[in-house]
Amino acid sequence: MAGTQPHHDGSALYVEGTTPVLGERSRLRLRVPRAWGRASRVWVRSVQDAEPRYDAAVCLDGPGASGASGAWSWWEASILVANPVARYRFVIETEGQNDGGAAVGPAAVGRAAVGPAKYWFLNNEGLFDRDTSDYHDFRLTTGVPAPQWSRDAVMYQVFPDRFARSAAADGRVVPDWAVACAWDDPVQGTGPDAARQFYGGDLVGVLEKIDHLAGLGVDILYLTPFFPARSNHRYDAATFAHVDPLLGGDQALIDLVEAAHSRGMKVMGDLTANHTGDAHEWFQRALSDPRCPEADYYYFNADHSDYECWWGVKSLPKLNWASPGLREAFVTGEDSVVAHWLKAPFNLDGWRIDVGNMAGRLGAQDLNKDVAALIQHRIQEINPDALLLGEETSDAGADVDGFGWQGAMTYSNFTRPMWQWLANPHARVDFFGTPLPCPNKVGAETVLATHRDLTSAFSWPVRNATMNALNTHDTARAATVMVPDGPIVAATLSMTLPGIPVVFAGDEFGLEGDRGESARTPMPWNEPARIVTDLGASYSALAALRHSHPAVQHGGLRWLMADGDVLAFVRESPSASLLVVAVRADVQGLSFESLGLDAAEREAVRASAPVFHTGGYLVYSDVNLNGPGAYIWTLPGVQSPPRERPDTRQ
Amino acid sequence: MAGTQPHHDGSALYVEGTTPVLGERSRLRLRVPRAWGRASRVWVRSVQDAEPRYDAAVCLDGPGASGASGAWSWWEASILVANPVARYRFVIETEGQNDGGAAVGPAAVGRAAVGPAKYWFLNNEGLFDRDTSDYHDFRLTTGVPAPQWSRDAVMYQVFPDRFARSAAADGRVVPDWAVACAWDDPVQGTGPDAARQFYGGDLVGVLEKIDHLAGLGVDILYLTPFFPARSNHRYDAATFAHVDPLLGGDQALIDLVEAAHSRGMKVMGDLTANHTGDAHEWFQRALSDPRCPEADYYYFNADHSDYECWWGVKSLPKLNWASPGLREAFVTGEDSVVAHWLKAPFNLDGWRIDVGNMAGRLGAQDLNKDVAALIQHRIQEINPDALLLGEETSDAGADVDGFGWQGAMTYSNFTRPMWQWLANPHARVDFFGTPLPCPNKVGAETVLATHRDLTSAFSWPVRNATMNALNTHDTARAATVMVPDGPIVAATLSMTLPGIPVVFAGDEFGLEGDRGESARTPMPWNEPARIVTDLGASYSALAALRHSHPAVQHGGLRWLMADGDVLAFVRESPSASLLVVAVRADVQGLSFESLGLDAAEREAVRASAPVFHTGGYLVYSDVNLNGPGAYIWTLPGVQSPPRERPDTRQ
Repeated sequence: MAGTQPHHDGSALYVEGTTPVLGERSRLRLRVPRAWGRASRVWVRSVQDAEPRYDAAVCLDGPGASGASGAWSWWEASILVANPVARYRFVIETEGQNDGGAAVGPAAVGRAAVGPAKYWFLNNEGLFDRDTSDYHDFRLTTGVPAPQWSRDAVMYQVFPDRFARSAAADGRVVPDWAVACAWDDPVQGTGPDAARQFYGGDLVGVLEKIDHLAGLGVDILYLTPFFPARSNHRYDAATFAHVDPLLGGDQALIDLVEAAHSRGMKVMGDLTANHTGDAHEWFQRALSDPRCPEADYYYFNADHSDYECWWGVKSLPKLNWASPGLREAFVTGEDSVVAHWLKAPFNLDGWRIDVGNMAGRLGAQDLNKDVAALIQHRIQEINPDALLLGEETSDAGADVDGFGWQGAMTYSNFTRPMWQWLANPHARVDFFGTPLPCPNKVGAETVLATHRDLTSAFSWPVRNATMNALNTHDTARAATVMVPDGPIVAATLSMTLPGIPVVFAGDEFGLEGDRGESARTPMPWNEPARIVTDLGASYSALAALRHSHPAVQHGGLRWLMADGDVLAFVRESPSASLLVVAVRADVQGLSFESLGLDAAEREAVRASAPVFHTGGYLVYSDVNLNGPGAYIWTLPGVQSPPRERPDTRQ
Repeated sequence: MAGTQPHHDGSALYVEGTTPVLGERSRLRLRVPRAWGRASRVWVRSVQDAEPRYDAAVCLDGPGASGASGAWSWWEASILVANPVARYRFVIETEGQNDGGAAVGPAAVGRAAVGPAKYWFLNNEGLFDRDTSDYHDFRLTTGVPAPQWSRDAVMYQVFPDRFARSAAADGRVVPDWAVACAWDDPVQGTGPDAARQFYGGDLVGVLEKIDHLAGLGVDILYLTPFFPARSNHRYDAATFAHVDPLLGGDQALIDLVEAAHSRGMKVMGDLTANHTGDAHEWFQRALSDPRCPEADYYYFNADHSDYECWWGVKSLPKLNWASPGLREAFVTGEDSVVAHWLKAPFNLDGWRIDVGNMAGRLGAQDLNKDVAALIQHRIQEINPDALLLGEETSDAGADVDGFGWQGAMTYSNFTRPMWQWLANPHARVDFFGTPLPCPNKVGAETVLATHRDLTSAFSWPVRNATMNALNTHDTARAATVMVPDGPIVAATLSMTLPGIPVVFAGDEFGLEGDRGESARTPMPWNEPARIVTDLGASYSALAALRHSHPAVQHGGLRWLMADGDVLAFVRESPSASLLVVAVRADVQGLSFESLGLDAAEREAVRASAPVFHTGGYLVYSDVNLNGPGAYIWTLPGVQSPPRERPDTRQ
């Protein structure tokens, strides 16, 4: 199992330095557990200008060098970072060749050695005894990584119409497109009113509740669009020039960002780079005058009678990124859309780009990478410490390579696998816009296989900047999808795995919903009866742990077990490590041996209570855990041997 | 196992029409074996402008519609080909949800149904019960496919210095760089003479032996470079303007192509688009004059004292495809290098591009797709029936998408897995330039996993135009790598799997060699003692089968078994099918049930002898086979139901 297999990841234990430099060498390390077997030789296979090259690794073993337990061998090699994204895998030689069969390690009992050597390949998807496609190789990226503040951050997502309504909202005129609702009116999940129900939440209201966010340990407030529009979701912007007066206008945003910043909190906005609303001033001008500068911002047909739009929805005309005028107005201009809101007095700390996967793509035209890189470059000019995330709801691997979106808002590698592991078999929900009526209920081994497959194309910085959401404004709520107590188990994993954990407003109250629109429930500030489960204290505790523990900020990720009802991993750093065990049912007698814990680690678990737990537990020579539940213990740090020891085998 | 799983591939049984058209719909079919279970609903998930979309399939079942046996259900859906490469997978719903576990089918014994439905995903790598990365999706490509003549062709590779020496060669002066050798002198595999040993084979000699090729059933004669150079391999061209006089000059090529064409044989040349030799006239001018037009064909440093080259080899300066001058001289010009040799009087039928993966790639610059597309476009202008192959020795999936190289010369998906399955554990050979001293010996299940992984990014046309070589001038010989009788087993698979089978001159005589240079053995025309194994008759028989059987030319590929010593598959077409079973050891009692054969197929195998076989066999209610060996039976064709039956469920 994973816990006793050779390991490498992109963390500082295994990769020298932070951002690799094009044309320079990076040093890479591999740990080989003695319980798995002894490597006789190790190489790193890197891909340089699309051609594989092999660099021999040196073994760093020596007296005392591999830690007190001596349970691991360490190897080190360096590769040339020949291209902006450098792909590599480890090649491990062991003595004694097995005659076929699965990758279970040379030390496995009962396997006859029939040849002199066997070769193993470790890539970002796992350990293989066969050739693998380069797609799943580890990646170093020379792109600008997400800012350091994102590495231990907790994100809180607010859908402005539904979060909090200030007194000022009472004085505003409800627009003609809207259906005015009282705060406790039921939300319509489908039908024509789903996008028109107007509850009147505003940014002043968000500011009034900012101490609630601070109390949860929130670091990033992510606001879905705040531009004027003709829907409650505002993804159909009528202008990018000012904040919707219904939300309090520009001053409300200025005040909110100031209040957030004063509490050490960042604020991110939400931009549609793929389309505008048909009420947008650009589109209205383009529609009325084919010769106006904005006409080529969109894809009109020859006689100007029709235009391309998002998914055939005519109110969302698609932007044409081949237009130099659009590029200037949206990105490169001095006061472009991207720039305007990052500058004073607004000082947003970054953007989430809506349908980032589709932006710039239409038929034979694919400008997606250009658009993403253009936006990233402009953001860097204004604020090198800002964050750029792209929505890539499905497989984000191919697009998010560190040049452009620094991380993904995606459901493929975390959200969907969590739903599937913890699925309530009786739930009937919208499953991410697919025709499937519910998630497949799968075991932990399938969850891990999915997670590894769908993260394998991410470099470590991208993976750490990718949003790990249990749900968002576009999905059903985890509380509806999952078995009881499932959401806090998944939340614990979101807080401890690489990536930015996301709390969608209302998660802390256990709110429900069977699809995105029905999940946009007004917050139950004054209706305690609408609080389903109060998870605030658990979220606060998890956020505090996330902020304080070096293994979350800087540690590697090593899976120990993925088997039916159990998911277990360690986050490891030199000063301290964390053991995270999640179970979806009661588990009796989970053995330390099966987790691959060494003597010091076993002692650490025996000697102290978990630093976080959601259920009951008993620790003997093994562990009993109540499920669904999540349990976190601190472990000793991982000492890596000094670099370039002279007494190397090779 | 594969034989009883849902199936789709890119052949005419499953994909309507030939080349999909951008912006139009393509109809796709799925076969679900009843032995696996009953699908309750099926969709095709396609990726359009990077966003998944689901199209419902209709079931085509009905009285008599699914063939006499009724062993299969057929489903059909159509997808919009929204982008030049359209990716898709099938989503299959079955009643009764398994609680985790591997993909073994809903009909598997002993599994409890715990929910109302389960979902399966069929992509180009296989069947999964979990989400998968889009990388492994099936692909339709709207690019120009390889010419029809390549679909049932057999390729024969000639390394001109070593194939045949005409009488005229005696009169030629051996150049100063060369070490003259007699035809039966041993070949040096390493050291300074490896590239200098000069045996004096020439194109006149090739012409003199063309009836040998015709006798083997060869359709494509592939010549490694014929340009003047300063090595026996000629990958360091000194000019692209004429054929090396040491090979007989331009007239020898004209005569050879004419003779080949008169026998219905095509001739392909070999071009280095990544580099020239340092003796090349372009480079010599560039070196002497930084202001000459050719100076920007290469990558010189600022003071013109150094230049980029292939893998640090200074005699192979790298071409700079950002140079408009190079593009014109090499590709787009009226009498460019690419064009000159495709036109009369030479009339070459296509190009194999050397190190096609590296061409146009250097550090942060990646013009590879541009270069490949540029060359393909120019070839199409001159001869739409010509073939363009790119050398992509390792994983070719990402590069070969149908726009540019129409197929790959690669070792990743066929050659290496064959070496690994049939490895002689005592062989010590150069393993494709890796530091590994030998292939991993692996079982058939690992061979199939590798083959599927490394072909998963190929569209069906690309896969059919990809070279399936047992070995080439750049590798050790299969006869040295494999167990005795291994090469003809692998050759049988190369002749029957999708792709262009390649015979490297000397394979038909069982020639040996532990690395590329030592495999370039002069042909034993007059030294029968040097013939190790005469495989000529087997190659002829396989080529004849390949040319005559519709299932090879047009059929699908469905794997039946990959288990240790056994690899078995069917090539299926409406009029007839082929069953191919390869074993690397004696196999007793291989059962028809385990192969998933239906009643008519079992009867076909019982009733008739194999149409090709290399060893002894006995057929009862099951089959005994001598190994290593390969066995081919004809089977009844596969009848697909009529399209768009009105009585569909859905």
